[in-house]
Amino acid sequence: MGEASQTLDGWFCLHDLRKIDWASWKKVPSEERQSMIHEFLNMLESWQTVEDNKTGSHALYTIVGQKADIIMMVLRPNMQELNDVETAFNKLKLADYTIPSYSYVSVVELGNYMPPKDGSDPLDSPEIRERIFPILPKWNHICFYPMDKKREGSDNWYSLPMKERRELMRAHGMTGRKYAGKIKQIITGSTGLDDWEWGVTLFAHEALQFKKLIYEMRFDEVSAKYGDFGQFFVGNILPPEKVEAFLHV
Amino acid sequence: MGEASQTLDGWFCLHDLRKIDWASWKKVPSEERQSMIHEFLNMLESWQTVEDNKTGSHALYTIVGQKADIIMMVLRPNMQELNDVETAFNKLKLADYTIPSYSYVSVVELGNYMPPKDGSDPLDSPEIRERIFPILPKWNHICFYPMDKKREGSDNWYSLPMKERRELMRAHGMTGRKYAGKIKQIITGSTGLDDWEWGVTLFAHEALQFKKLIYEMRFDEVSAKYGDFGQFFVGNILPPEKVEAFLHV
Amino acid sequence: MGEASQTLDGWFCLHDLRKIDWASWKKVPSEERQSMIHEFLNMLESWQTVEDNKTGSHALYTIVGQKADIIMMVLRPNMQELNDVETAFNKLKLADYTIPSYSYVSVVELGNYMPPKDGSDPLDSPEIRERIFPILPKWNHICFYPMDKKREGSDNWYSLPMKERRELMRAHGMTGRKYAGKIKQIITGSTGLDDWEWGVTLFAHEALQFKKLIYEMRFDEVSAKYGDFGQFFVGNILPPEKVEAFLHV
Amino acid sequence: MGEASQTLDGWFCLHDLRKIDWASWKKVPSEERQSMIHEFLNMLESWQTVEDNKTGSHALYTIVGQKADIIMMVLRPNMQELNDVETAFNKLKLADYTIPSYSYVSVVELGNYMPPKDGSDPLDSPEIRERIFPILPKWNHICFYPMDKKREGSDNWYSLPMKERRELMRAHGMTGRKYAGKIKQIITGSTGLDDWEWGVTLFAHEALQFKKLIYEMRFDEVSAKYGDFGQFFVGNILPPEKVEAFLHV
Amino acid sequence: MGEASQTLDGWFCLHDLRKIDWASWKKVPSEERQSMIHEFLNMLESWQTVEDNKTGSHALYTIVGQKADIIMMVLRPNMQELNDVETAFNKLKLADYTIPSYSYVSVVELGNYMPPKDGSDPLDSPEIRERIFPILPKWNHICFYPMDKKREGSDNWYSLPMKERRELMRAHGMTGRKYAGKIKQIITGSTGLDDWEWGVTLFAHEALQFKKLIYEMRFDEVSAKYGDFGQFFVGNILPPEKVEAFLHV
Repeated sequence: MGEASQTLDGWFCLHDLRKIDWASWKKVPSEERQSMIHEFLNMLESWQTVEDNKTGSHALYTIVGQKADIIMMVLRPNMQELNDVETAFNKLKLADYTIPSYSYVSVVELGNYMPPKDGSDPLDSPEIRERIFPILPKWNHICFYPMDKKREGSDNWYSLPMKERRELMRAHGMTGRKYAGKIKQIITGSTGLDDWEWGVTLFAHEALQFKKLIYEMRFDEVSAKYGDFGQFFVGNILPPEKVEAFLHV
Repeated sequence: MGEASQTLDGWFCLHDLRKIDWASWKKVPSEERQSMIHEFLNMLESWQTVEDNKTGSHALYTIVGQKADIIMMVLRPNMQELNDVETAFNKLKLADYTIPSYSYVSVVELGNYMPPKDGSDPLDSPEIRERIFPILPKWNHICFYPMDKKREGSDNWYSLPMKERRELMRAHGMTGRKYAGKIKQIITGSTGLDDWEWGVTLFAHEALQFKKLIYEMRFDEVSAKYGDFGQFFVGNILPPEKVEAFLHV
Repeated sequence: MGEASQTLDGWFCLHDLRKIDWASWKKVPSEERQSMIHEFLNMLESWQTVEDNKTGSHALYTIVGQKADIIMMVLRPNMQELNDVETAFNKLKLADYTIPSYSYVSVVELGNYMPPKDGSDPLDSPEIRERIFPILPKWNHICFYPMDKKREGSDNWYSLPMKERRELMRAHGMTGRKYAGKIKQIITGSTGLDDWEWGVTLFAHEALQFKKLIYEMRFDEVSAKYGDFGQFFVGNILPPEKVEAFLHV
Repeated sequence: MGEASQTLDGWFCLHDLRKIDWASWKKVPSEERQSMIHEFLNMLESWQTVEDNKTGSHALYTIVGQKADIIMMVLRPNMQELNDVETAFNKLKLADYTIPSYSYVSVVELGNYMPPKDGSDPLDSPEIRERIFPILPKWNHICFYPMDKKREGSDNWYSLPMKERRELMRAHGMTGRKYAGKIKQIITGSTGLDDWEWGVTLFAHEALQFKKLIYEMRFDEVSAKYGDFGQFFVGNILPPEKVEAFLHV
Repeated sequence: MGEASQTLDGWFCLHDLRKIDWASWKKVPSEERQSMIHEFLNMLESWQTVEDNKTGSHALYTIVGQKADIIMMVLRPNMQELNDVETAFNKLKLADYTIPSYSYVSVVELGNYMPPKDGSDPLDSPEIRERIFPILPKWNHICFYPMDKKREGSDNWYSLPMKERRELMRAHGMTGRKYAGKIKQIITGSTGLDDWEWGVTLFAHEALQFKKLIYEMRFDEVSAKYGDFGQFFVGNILPPEKVEAFLHV
């Protein structure tokens, strides 16, 4: 029986990916479209107020390719508020012109395999609070994918001793550190909450950095032997002031 | 040839998950929507009467993320009554505004790998009757997922001797017991009834406890080596008095 | 090169599973619905005539859960007649209110791994004729699933010597025999006819017996090591006299 | 690095499987239906002219079960002509009442693992030309499935020495030869052209022969260890003179 | 921990595959269809201007079989421009008559496992610039497929030493070189950008060369043991002057 690692958990997180039903959207009279866009922008403003109050955060990006057109990533203190945000979006008129294409439910997670601390409460540390209750950056690009640690034959992450898992994660972290300033990473845990064990959300100024980081990491033993990856979604920031142009038809 | 473990089986169970077709629902005139909601609330009341009579039980929760909007979990004494409940729901007008997204057919199961009892009939025990004919709790959160025991190469649960299976299950149970009072678990068996071998339904006051329990359990040998998991659904309680607000558009 | 076992093959078999499109069905004026139901009942009657003439057989059951609402299992002497039955159903008006959800093409199969007989033609034996040209029972419940024998690494059924396969099948048969009178089993072979190698159709008075049998069998070496299973469908008998009530909205 | 076997390649091949959208088809006024059927029959006639000129061939069969209602198998000298046939069908009015359900792109292939010949050009041999530019038989039944050779762990076809592959294929061919006159087989190669490596199309007078052949072959080492199979489609011949009856509603 | 190979990355790439919704397209009045085609041809012209300015490139081909009807492959200097091209297409009226069927996001990649160069900047080399900022050829046929390198048990590419990977890639390259002049290959990397690790796009004068090359390569150890392949799409060039005929109904 392996020893489970301890985690620190922060805000709950919903990744909500949608396609735009362009064919139907074009058929809506221009004025109605404007009114729907404004209703959506009002919702974005209310999300911004939550973020300004540091009681949550969010990001809005377009997605390249047919898997989705936009991604909304929303952080909230509990599962009920997360559900309320989702339902409120579904009740928007604009939502009727979107097609759900993927979603992910998780919670911001920190501290796996960290060296043990002194007895102080980690939640007293501002640095830790910033990491588990993060205000999402407004960088140019997003990359999101869910992942598992493998449990196949002799490649079974959950059967490794804690010490070995910690060492593999440490080496993996070293690879990540090379990209400091180029990539900002948010890890969310989803064991028991969604179909994969973790969600990885990366932000970058240059999209090529995603490929460089993830390709380099794939040679780390922890990824090479134990990483199992879901779909990858990549895209460009969509600030509120560009929403109207994006939806203009 | 392995020795099959004995089970005690109670009520049959249907997990019925649906999306709301919000776009169509919004187009229904307000009065008709009200009438459909009331028809659904009447059905919930009739289910409550069954539960009050201890001839069945049920739960209604919203689901976070795009996999579904609501889950109805219904327990009944036999397969015909379960089918009748499902068909009656399908005949509701509200059902036309829902999109089937997942369902699961199983039966409440108890007693796998329990130490042998004295000769008394377990069905005479009120404690056992409460576990196989359970009244579902009204806790804040639900988590549902189906699962298998692996039969892959050397990781073959069904080829292990009974003694080893019992020991692995006992250790697994010890992990579960740490969450007593925080999580209530209903195990339903579905070998021959649906596509996975078991359904696991958890109820919690705090949603984070699902992640803590399931993550910790994944390090138990029985999960690490033999657990194979389906989709995970997680959500918030939807008591009858909040149905109208949830469906208000 | 393994030695292929010999089979006796009887009637061809179509399992045809459909959902009811309840939302559209409700919109049909009541009289038209009646007329469609009667057209379907007429077809059931013509099927019954075939069965009475012992030139085929059929079963009609509802299915619990969202995978399907009804299953029609039809046996006919050849592939062309099977196709004709299917096409005739598709041309019924009622068919327009059903959604195909799964189907399976196979042929009733007998005699795998049976001890060699004396030189007489097995088709002269009434007992064998009843098994390969079976009149389906009208028991309360049905359970249908397709399956393969594994060919994965060292778990390769088709590489085992005939003697070992025969022994494993014999032991498996012993488990089945315990359920005599409780479960009636029809094995249909589908190698080269559909995506799995066999279809298993079980009939029972009590639905719980399906779970007991299949769970117990999973510990037989032939299932534990070599069984690979598709979707499971389970349901309740729908005699012609209950069709109208089932479809009443 | 294994030695690739040499192949002789003939006509390109499209398997195009469609469901009939019966519900929509029934709504078309009878005269329009007739006109659409005749437009389709005209196309079949033009295909027949190509076949009579030996510049291509084709087959039309119905398919049993829900996977498709019809299969069109078309052979043409190059990829552009194949594409033209497909597009021309899509532009037929009847095509609007069909639902694409599967297709396969490949090229007739011969000569894998054949003993080396004298120096003559195999394309000078009439026997070989008949095999790579085949006129499809008009037998009662068709069976089509795509397949791969496995590359899993120690079961890796492409790592076997040529000599061993040739021996395994030879033994496999011996099994096939037992069915001469009962089954006619067309092998088409699709590595780089579609998702599997080969398409297998069988024609038979009796449908049961498909099951007998493929079941017996599964015990050949080349199938038992190295065969990986896709979907199986099976059906009945649909000669032009029966098209109208088939589509009559 | 394996040593990651270095890559040179050029233009970002979108493969956008669409089906034509022929049934709806036929219902559009002829003049409107003409206008939509011209709007699309205008877009193709603007893409051609980009290509003439060497600030991007593109290809347009039809696809054989039901997986798609057309493929647009577009190269642009960054992710935002790629997204803009996609969104602009979606806003075309013609787009409403297309059905997204597959897409792929990647970046032109070069230099994996190349022998180390002298200290000069590879981006100063015109030969290298032509390979990472390629003008796509206008050859008759296209073949596109995504692929991974396996990480399964003992077949784990990412755990091999760099030296072994380089040797395997060199031998693989030798196979490819035999097809010089017959096939032009563009490799795009997609680790972190889409669901597979690489996209392979081949252009050929004769479609049969795709099969010959890819079949021969499958016997290379790097493919036999480590190659994992996605869907294959193959088709014929669709030059602007043939678009109108292709879409004529």
